[in-house]
Amino acid sequence: MCSFISIQIVATGICRTDDHVLKGSFPNIDYPVIPGHEGAGIVESIGEGVTCVKPGEKVIPLCLPQCGECSSCLNPDTNCCLKTHLYESQNLMPDKTSRFTCKGKAIHHFLWISTFSEYTVMPDSAIARIDDDAPLDKVCLFGCGFSTGYGAAINTAKVEPGSTCAVFGLGGVGLSAVMGCKAAGASRIFAIDINKDKFSLAKELGATDCLNPQDFKKPIQEVITEMSNGGVDFAIECIGNVAVMKAALECTMVGWGTCTIVGVALSGQSIPVSPMQLIMGKKINATFFGGWKSVDSVPKLVSDYMAKKFSLDALVTYTLPFDKINDAFDFMYEGKSNRTVLVF
Amino acid sequence: MCSFISIQIVATGICRTDDHVLKGSFPNIDYPVIPGHEGAGIVESIGEGVTCVKPGEKVIPLCLPQCGECSSCLNPDTNCCLKTHLYESQNLMPDKTSRFTCKGKAIHHFLWISTFSEYTVMPDSAIARIDDDAPLDKVCLFGCGFSTGYGAAINTAKVEPGSTCAVFGLGGVGLSAVMGCKAAGASRIFAIDINKDKFSLAKELGATDCLNPQDFKKPIQEVITEMSNGGVDFAIECIGNVAVMKAALECTMVGWGTCTIVGVALSGQSIPVSPMQLIMGKKINATFFGGWKSVDSVPKLVSDYMAKKFSLDALVTYTLPFDKINDAFDFMYEGKSNRTVLVF
Repeated sequence: MCSFISIQIVATGICRTDDHVLKGSFPNIDYPVIPGHEGAGIVESIGEGVTCVKPGEKVIPLCLPQCGECSSCLNPDTNCCLKTHLYESQNLMPDKTSRFTCKGKAIHHFLWISTFSEYTVMPDSAIARIDDDAPLDKVCLFGCGFSTGYGAAINTAKVEPGSTCAVFGLGGVGLSAVMGCKAAGASRIFAIDINKDKFSLAKELGATDCLNPQDFKKPIQEVITEMSNGGVDFAIECIGNVAVMKAALECTMVGWGTCTIVGVALSGQSIPVSPMQLIMGKKINATFFGGWKSVDSVPKLVSDYMAKKFSLDALVTYTLPFDKINDAFDFMYEGKSNRTVLVF
Repeated sequence: MCSFISIQIVATGICRTDDHVLKGSFPNIDYPVIPGHEGAGIVESIGEGVTCVKPGEKVIPLCLPQCGECSSCLNPDTNCCLKTHLYESQNLMPDKTSRFTCKGKAIHHFLWISTFSEYTVMPDSAIARIDDDAPLDKVCLFGCGFSTGYGAAINTAKVEPGSTCAVFGLGGVGLSAVMGCKAAGASRIFAIDINKDKFSLAKELGATDCLNPQDFKKPIQEVITEMSNGGVDFAIECIGNVAVMKAALECTMVGWGTCTIVGVALSGQSIPVSPMQLIMGKKINATFFGGWKSVDSVPKLVSDYMAKKFSLDALVTYTLPFDKINDAFDFMYEGKSNRTVLVF
């Protein structure tokens, strides 16, 4: 049995995945739907059986639950709680009800979260209780972007001290991956984007070499392979473009290179993986929420942020009132923001 | 500088990869060429600087060198010696000469080995000196099939005690993978082939469940997922069919399943990997010569065989004189042999 929590959303980031929902290119979405999955808020009320939070407490709703009981939750090497099967639509609560209506008609949830709403309802296996002093208009990024990119480097790629890395795509997730590579001790971090306006912040956060593929005649994977003396140890794709995923695998080192997929590809697309790349000892994996066990980890990440162990604030380019949401999407399309946070 | 060794080939297996060469579907082949890469023989003579073998000693020529000096050879986690770049044609010796002629015209080598020949020449970084008592018409299988399949389970997939495995394709390589899974302590081994004649030997070697995809209405990956209560821990593809590689990934367990590619796909083909499969925590890798450091490991494998630590003999269905080579290919096409060994 699942218990439920009603949350007043205070702030929410917007993410490319929300745009996939708008464009109809995320799998298994039922419309009408309320997108948004990178929020932070305050518990409004709790249902029967809820023990993890009380009304008035600050929380981050989680796109990945941690039930604590399934074989994945009991396995220290994975965070893919079986209570969320990405195969399945998560457009209704686990009890198959919707908690949203508009003019009497049911509206679907998105990943159980739907942060583009003043109030939302969550199952209690997907809630992180966070520090009372945490600024919600910043720590909402722990609901997706920062946790995913930073964790992809630390937990999924398992970047090693002294290694070389390449991060493809310098939005909020990619910049977080750069920070993760830096925190893991990488000695050289290539940061790749076709938008050179991203480069100064990328360098500030740890990138050593910023590359615009449009500045080269050769494919960027060949440029990186040459510059890194045979290939990087770790490549991290933070765009969601299957051609870039292929390029990321190709620029890794023969023998042990690892390509980690972070970006979410459009529904139905496949990565065209050359078997010969794998035979040469390269590996490919992908991250789900940065590999973090969600309920356990997000409160710790927030505490580390409060203790100034890393800077999240640089990722938030704009903070706007919620009714400017369409401007926020435009900033994303135009490459003008790393993250825009909307506040209610 | 490379030194060279002339070898009298005594016995050679034939492998599907040799058929890829005949059909023009292996990358970077220059014709005319002498295929064959699973041989065993006797050193005929040695060139200047050779210290690893003497004339008259038994050897297995290796499709993967171990130079002992490159960054891969110095790394314990990979066997992809950089002296062999699979990107490049290996149809000439490392000094860019051919040692074969026919009616005055140069003939190309294949993977530096070309065992479909009474004599061949090898660089000294790709030779395994083996036990004087080893029967060459059996241990030639350590030159490719057995080492690749068995090692794929042990070294590349890293099959764990008590785990569940699925092996796709029950030729010589697939049956060797079954043996590897069994040796690693797998508690359940699904063995999949459309040729049910393979099943009795597969069971003898360790398979617990033999499945013919043609016996089911559902895709075989769904059947295996159901039978294994959510997916297998390890799937090993030993066919070289990119659609089967996709199915193998799909039948692994959410959270930690590993798909290991062993079969060699046709040149230019890609594996259509669904990013969502990877996001769910599954991994994909491939084996090159079973992950063995070739020069170090093959002599030990031969010694283990001589000590009866595993049975290779069951894999050899036919032993024929070399001039019956076309019959041997027909047996492979017709699924009548696991391995046919040709002797000079």
